[in-house]
This record gives sequence, structure tokens and C-alpha cells, in this order.
Amino acid sequence: MAAPIDFYFDFSSPYGYLAGELIDDLAARYGREVRWRPILLGITFKLTGNAPLTQQPLKGEYSIRDFQRSARYYKVPFQYPKQFPISSVAASRMFLWLQEQDPAAAKRYARAVYKAYFVDGRDISMAETAAAIAGECGLDSAAALAANSDPRIKDLFKTAVEAATARGVFGSPFIFVDDEPFWGVDRFPQIEAWLSRGPF
Amino acid sequence: MAAPIDFYFDFSSPYGYLAGELIDDLAARYGREVRWRPILLGITFKLTGNAPLTQQPLKGEYSIRDFQRSARYYKVPFQYPKQFPISSVAASRMFLWLQEQDPAAAKRYARAVYKAYFVDGRDISMAETAAAIAGECGLDSAAALAANSDPRIKDLFKTAVEAATARGVFGSPFIFVDDEPFWGVDRFPQIEAWLSRGPF
Repeated sequence: MAAPIDFYFDFSSPYGYLAGELIDDLAARYGREVRWRPILLGITFKLTGNAPLTQQPLKGEYSIRDFQRSARYYKVPFQYPKQFPISSVAASRMFLWLQEQDPAAAKRYARAVYKAYFVDGRDISMAETAAAIAGECGLDSAAALAANSDPRIKDLFKTAVEAATARGVFGSPFIFVDDEPFWGVDRFPQIEAWLSRGPF
Repeated sequence: MAAPIDFYFDFSSPYGYLAGELIDDLAARYGREVRWRPILLGITFKLTGNAPLTQQPLKGEYSIRDFQRSARYYKVPFQYPKQFPISSVAASRMFLWLQEQDPAAAKRYARAVYKAYFVDGRDISMAETAAAIAGECGLDSAAALAANSDPRIKDLFKTAVEAATARGVFGSPFIFVDDEPFWGVDRFPQIEAWLSRGPF
């Protein structure tokens, strides 16, 4: 079987959310698995000298319109959150802790976190909320909450974010297919071309 | 007939070049004309606080790879220029001067300028080169060169760039379909959806 696709995302990223709704189906059509890898855009923004899209003059207003229109284009429910962006640290740590035990359950959790934030407007930056979502997925919410302050998990996430940066990841979603980097859900047509006919 | 599509572009923009190779055919499939409108990214970068893609850490290396891959994806010839970015003022003024007389000839000129820079690696920032390209298109190169220092044309371009910014244009390509804004050649699928089935 061909190598898994690496899918880097920030739980606070609208385009990451849209990509998360689409990528496993896309990969499956070409016999690929997807490895979900949470990152922190705040770290990469410091490196690239960028601010969140919505905080940039001119770009800000367009971006919110584009989030909403892109969601309709992909037929994915979306409600621009009142608070944006927010910290995705807690949800990311809980995701990594779940992923160690059960990658499929961790993906269910990740999609539930994204929906809680980008559809239901819940504040996923609160560890209690991020843990409650684990409970709603049939997972152990108390253990998830504990994972958020587990030094081993904290270090695991820190190391993962550093490794992503070292690999050249600077945005969300950021996807590698056989080491070829693709930035943005708008690169899905190129990703599909790459998967279907190989390097071009 | 439906309103023309507004196509804002900078002659120094790789994605603007790719869009320029595609947009008239796309529009024609839906019975639309395209109005080409040169802008200066340097002006909008000052407003949005951005630097050219290729000068940003991490993003720079990816961007050059993405220019080249995107060109292959769209089957458009492309050679990353040795000097990048460059000033597009002279070519833009000559374009506007030509457009007053013959919009179709001005488009032929624009595509020739893009090819000169992004395929043949010529320095289109030089007024003499920009004027020579007009001559190669069967147009009056001496008159084109004169247009570059004509105060009326200079003012026309300045006003056009300010009007673009006032309309919210901050990148290249930037396209309006019936006042709906789309940024990037990667929004062409959404533009096509908008043209074929109306607002979504």
C-alpha cells in the first residue's frame, strides 16, 4: 500500500476544517490513509512574519467572505465563530493522546472539535470544553482533561510542532503526498491529480 | 449580455500570468467579456503589511515550487525569472494606453509581456523592453515608449491603482464577477461555479 498522506492542521483554521471534512474521502479514493497532525499557526506566523488573515487590512474582510463561500462551495456547514482565532493547544494535546491509543477515534474527535467550533460556535480553547467533546464522542473525558496537563503529552505536542516547522509547514491545511508539499484546501485539485497520475 | 468580468493583475505576478492564460477562455464559455486591469502589488503589500511571497521565510521556498507545479498543472509554460519580483509600472502604463485605443490589442500585448517575463526571462521592468514587446505585437513601439512618460497616462494608472485598492483588491490575480470578489487563480473552480449556476 502507498504511504499515508500527512495532513497538518490547526483546530482554529477554517480552511483546515474544510480540508478535514474532505481529505480522508479523497485519500481513500486512491487507496491512501491519512495521518492527522495538529500544529499551531501562532508559531509559524512568528516565523513567516504573518498575522492571522482576518487581522490584515483588506484581506480580513475578504477572508471571512471566502471562508463562508468556500464552505458553501464544498457543501460543508460553517458558521464564522464570534471569537477568532483561538488557542487550539488543549484540543491538540487531547488529540495526540487519543491518537496514541486509537487513531480512528482520534480522527472522530478531531472532526467533532472542528464542528463544535466552526458549526456550533463553542469555545474549544477551554480545556473543559475540549474534554467534554471527547466525552460526547464516547471517549474518556476525564482522562482527556488529564492528558492536557500531562508533561509527556505537552512535550509530544511541542516536539511535533517543531518537527512540522522543520519540514517546512507554515500554514493550515498543509499536506504532504510522498514528500510533495501542498498548502491550502484550494490545492486539492492538484493533490488529486498527483494521487491519480503521479508526479507532474 | 451579462456584465464583463474584472480581472486585476500585476505583470510581476506568476499567478496573475497563469490566470491571464486562462481567464478569457473561461469567461467566453459563459458568454462573458473580461476587462484586464493592471495594478501594483507593491502598493497593496504596504497596506496589508505583506512582503512578496518569495521573500517570506518558509513560504518563499514553497512558493517557487508552487508557481512551477501550478504552471504544469494548468499546462502553461513557465520559467521562474532570475529577477523576481520586478517593477511592472512601464508595461502597465503602455497597456492602459493601448487599451484606450484597442482593448483586444492591449490584451495581446499583456499576454506577450507576461510571456516575455515568465517564459523568456526578459526584463520587462525596462521601458525599452516593454515598448519593444509592443512592436513585436505589431503595435507602435515608439508611441508606446512615449506613453510611459505621458503625464496623462501616468495619472490614469495611478488613479486606477487607487480605485482598485478602494474596491478591496489586495492581490493578483483578483477577479470580480458581478461584484463578487475572488482572489487567486486557485479560485477559478469557484468562479466557474458562480458563472455556471449563479451566486451560491
